[in-house]
Amino acid sequence: MRSIRGFLIGPPLPTQRLGDERLDKLRAMAALSPDALSSIAYANQEIYLGLAVAGAAGLVLSWKIGLVIVILLVIVAISYSQTIEAYPSGGGSYTVARENLGQYPGLIAAASLLIDYVLTAAVSLTAGVAAIASAFPDLWPYRTALALVLLVIITLTNLRGIRETGTVIAIPVYLFIGCYVLMLLVGLVRAAIEGPGSLEAVAPPATHSLTLFLVMHTFASGCTALTGVEAISNGVRLFKKPEARNARQTLAAMALLMVFMFLGSVSLTQFFGIVPQTNETILSALARHILGTNAAYYVVQASTLLILAVAANTSFAGFPGVASILARDGYLPRQLSFLGDRLVFTNGMLLLAGLTAVLIVLFGGDSHALIPLFAVGVFLAFSLSQSGMVIHWLHERGPGWRLKAAVNGTGAVATAITLVVVAVAKFLDGAWIVVVLIPLLVLMFRAIDRHYIEIRRELALNDAFPPVSTTPPPPPRVVVPISGVHRGTVLALHYARSISDRVTAVYVEINPGDADRIRAAWETWGMGVPLVIVPSPYRSIVWPFLDFLDRYDREANDGHLASVILPEFIPAKWWELLLHNQTASLIRFALFYRRRRFGKVRAIIDIPLHLRK
Amino acid sequence: MRSIRGFLIGPPLPTQRLGDERLDKLRAMAALSPDALSSIAYANQEIYLGLAVAGAAGLVLSWKIGLVIVILLVIVAISYSQTIEAYPSGGGSYTVARENLGQYPGLIAAASLLIDYVLTAAVSLTAGVAAIASAFPDLWPYRTALALVLLVIITLTNLRGIRETGTVIAIPVYLFIGCYVLMLLVGLVRAAIEGPGSLEAVAPPATHSLTLFLVMHTFASGCTALTGVEAISNGVRLFKKPEARNARQTLAAMALLMVFMFLGSVSLTQFFGIVPQTNETILSALARHILGTNAAYYVVQASTLLILAVAANTSFAGFPGVASILARDGYLPRQLSFLGDRLVFTNGMLLLAGLTAVLIVLFGGDSHALIPLFAVGVFLAFSLSQSGMVIHWLHERGPGWRLKAAVNGTGAVATAITLVVVAVAKFLDGAWIVVVLIPLLVLMFRAIDRHYIEIRRELALNDAFPPVSTTPPPPPRVVVPISGVHRGTVLALHYARSISDRVTAVYVEINPGDADRIRAAWETWGMGVPLVIVPSPYRSIVWPFLDFLDRYDREANDGHLASVILPEFIPAKWWELLLHNQTASLIRFALFYRRRRFGKVRAIIDIPLHLRK
Repeated sequence: MRSIRGFLIGPPLPTQRLGDERLDKLRAMAALSPDALSSIAYANQEIYLGLAVAGAAGLVLSWKIGLVIVILLVIVAISYSQTIEAYPSGGGSYTVARENLGQYPGLIAAASLLIDYVLTAAVSLTAGVAAIASAFPDLWPYRTALALVLLVIITLTNLRGIRETGTVIAIPVYLFIGCYVLMLLVGLVRAAIEGPGSLEAVAPPATHSLTLFLVMHTFASGCTALTGVEAISNGVRLFKKPEARNARQTLAAMALLMVFMFLGSVSLTQFFGIVPQTNETILSALARHILGTNAAYYVVQASTLLILAVAANTSFAGFPGVASILARDGYLPRQLSFLGDRLVFTNGMLLLAGLTAVLIVLFGGDSHALIPLFAVGVFLAFSLSQSGMVIHWLHERGPGWRLKAAVNGTGAVATAITLVVVAVAKFLDGAWIVVVLIPLLVLMFRAIDRHYIEIRRELALNDAFPPVSTTPPPPPRVVVPISGVHRGTVLALHYARSISDRVTAVYVEINPGDADRIRAAWETWGMGVPLVIVPSPYRSIVWPFLDFLDRYDREANDGHLASVILPEFIPAKWWELLLHNQTASLIRFALFYRRRRFGKVRAIIDIPLHLRK
Repeated sequence: MRSIRGFLIGPPLPTQRLGDERLDKLRAMAALSPDALSSIAYANQEIYLGLAVAGAAGLVLSWKIGLVIVILLVIVAISYSQTIEAYPSGGGSYTVARENLGQYPGLIAAASLLIDYVLTAAVSLTAGVAAIASAFPDLWPYRTALALVLLVIITLTNLRGIRETGTVIAIPVYLFIGCYVLMLLVGLVRAAIEGPGSLEAVAPPATHSLTLFLVMHTFASGCTALTGVEAISNGVRLFKKPEARNARQTLAAMALLMVFMFLGSVSLTQFFGIVPQTNETILSALARHILGTNAAYYVVQASTLLILAVAANTSFAGFPGVASILARDGYLPRQLSFLGDRLVFTNGMLLLAGLTAVLIVLFGGDSHALIPLFAVGVFLAFSLSQSGMVIHWLHERGPGWRLKAAVNGTGAVATAITLVVVAVAKFLDGAWIVVVLIPLLVLMFRAIDRHYIEIRRELALNDAFPPVSTTPPPPPRVVVPISGVHRGTVLALHYARSISDRVTAVYVEINPGDADRIRAAWETWGMGVPLVIVPSPYRSIVWPFLDFLDRYDREANDGHLASVILPEFIPAKWWELLLHNQTASLIRFALFYRRRRFGKVRAIIDIPLHLRK
């Protein structure tokens, strides 16, 4: 077990190495940006599909819609840059909304973030696999399985730890950025030489008129380009010192790249008048036009596939971080805040992997069905986070607070408007699922929080608790249920007599007459311990035994519950457990979960009996 | 929990009612015969499909092949009638083969029987659902799910107990028998009036020549008519007294019905020169010819569907019985021999239901793929059982032993020849799976047997065991791992001090510096118990604690292992368990399964702490 684990995810790392596991800016960009960068690929496609139904008259709007989205992107990026400055320990939407707007806005932001991380992982993996499967149609029937295999690989990579992940991921990220930027530069040169193409000549015939709703719907679809922008501000603590400055510079570089790549590709597509063939993405058509169908084209396509596959990785940096902060605050199970032995939040990663797997299986590996769920959570979190920043600056009133509040205010208003557009335009396509899910998650967070508060209250030691005495309490009464007279019974009796002088053995008689045999053997091996025979007309062992216990405690009437000693066979091979009837486990389960006695303790003593073979 | 259970399968029944839960002959026939009777339906179809490829020249052989199968059926029925006489306590192939031929032939027969019971359940359910789904094509995509739903219904019915099952099942069985016999009688009258039809005029054109292999293959397929004949001899103990006589009479009645229904339908089909339409069974074509397409025809078809659905029920009477006998002999887990509180072998039924569900899912609800696996196990069990009976009579030499041995000898030879024909003709169609599976099962039986023998050896009390002393042993050393200082810790300490004066508390320090806080609280609440701080640089709790235990035991050097007290929170709602990190469970698991110390006992004491909310 330990050695397989060691091979897959590496040896344990000591806590003092925590400071080492930080990322320089290049690696941090590779770890945190693939979601944001790769989303450009499908945002492009969504804009084309959204406008193409209105024919050439629609497609000429591409550039303008792209420009609006880019302006939104710049606003959001600047806003998050201010967040990093104000929250250098890794703010993120949850922290900002909670500290400035209160508990519920914070929890809503947190729910949005968690949902979006899972969606990012699921959409990126299935989109990547669908692209691979389009190139190699034989793989098509196995695309759910392939997405799950990719998920396992990415999960293992992340369980190894952050720095090693950054190194592995860097190659496809910079390959993608390099290919894309080069291609667009070549495209600009060609555009200057060739001049514009004509959309009217090639555009598909219009099937819808160009309504405002159609434009809004296209804008909402295109806004998926913004998913992942917040990843850097959530991951500030992954950066090398000075964390805040490094994070801001990385965010600025990423935003610039996004603006150039997104606006460049949308504009060139429209300028050249490009329309894709059947079963081709608009991005592929653009690359084919600029580069021709040659090796360079295939490299661009391959890098697109790769970045989609690693975009899922952003979630593995983001989800466990947000979950650990929530867990630390008591809104998620505490285990999510434990650092694993590779200094990463192992439990959070496993939870993310599990949820992503469920989503992939439920949606049959189809990314298209998942995309409409996407933007609601993203813009809800954006909007809450930036509203929170406005309040933050109003409270703080540091140098330049008016300008800063105005910047974040603009961000809050812009993203709030976008949120409404997205939720309305995409409601029936799937956004409703997220609209339902977010309040449910918030309710869950609150229920978990209440549970932890209640437990702290119940466990607290105070003066009302019985005073500590220095004389030890009297030994407990001890009951030993026996299944026969054998070595296990004798060992249990030995133990019982070592801790108490009030020991009773109990035999539940299922087949009438069996007790005689037991009584005879008891003469020899019983060590003078009294033996009680309990008949069981319905052939159950557990219930008659529990009834006996109740009776015995009632008759003793000493304010305590008797301890129960359970001899248990532990076979040498795991499958042999199936050959034993687990009565001890059933009794323990029943005592733990069926018979609750508040304030009274019934100790259950397991005597494990290891079998040699 | 108990009330849902009570609603679904009824209240517990006391052991003394065991004698009551017996079946009269009519109910026993209903409970034990549907497999045998319903197999006629698909055997007919298999004979038609086998011969039709050779055209009219092939189809004229139907009657002769049917006759050979009926002769085989009569031989097998008479042989089993002799088995019931010799083994009135419910022989079955396993008991007969084991007692007379030895362990391995017995186990081979048992493996064959168990496989066939599972196949019967899976084939009958999927065939029944396929028939329903053919009538209502909308159901087709859900046929796996429908088969599973039927399986659940039948399982629940059987868990209620035998007699109630017999009543529920009787209606479709006698409906089927009544419809079928009436239809054949009408057919005979019409045959006498109308005279023969002409096969040549309607038979499909021959695509294969009429080879010996084709005839053999058809015969092998038709032999599926014999599946289920042995059910009555396995279920003798279900009959009212006198069990043996009642069982023999029921077997004779069932065999006569099978002969009449099978030979009658095959002969009439050939006599009238009937050929089915596309997507129609030969049985449906016969019914349509005799009755016309009217209400009577639909009733016959519906009764065919019903009997297929309840044929699975035979397995629920047979499988748990055989499994319980094997379990009693130590070849299967003992739990399979326990009578449940409704006086049926609950565990055996659940195992059968589970295996059947797996088979249905694996074969995608397609009965056609399952049928070729069928006959090998059946005829292997027949042949072994009857060989065993020959030896039985040779040993016993009671009145008429020569004749009896000759009868069973004929049965043994006839079924052995059939076995070879079936295995060869159907090998590639799927019989190979069973040929591989049977030896694997036999190996499993042996491994389980060895395990139980070894355990009895290890648990046996004998003079070599340390003598029983009357003075109690000294109290154990006790170790209490603590996660903090709270009520749970104090209760665990109280208990520890009540059973021993040598108590040590251990705190595993994950975050450097936490121990100071614990030490301060220990001053107030520690009751003078020494506290040991164990550092954990790799943030694991379990391994440092286990290392401490080893060190502590080594230093004490008293030949014993310290007891471990584990305080465990038991939350009020099950899902709240997910909010606690289960360190106690992990430690117990590690002590049980990772650190085996033969001959030494480390007691593990659970202190359950029930939380109010």
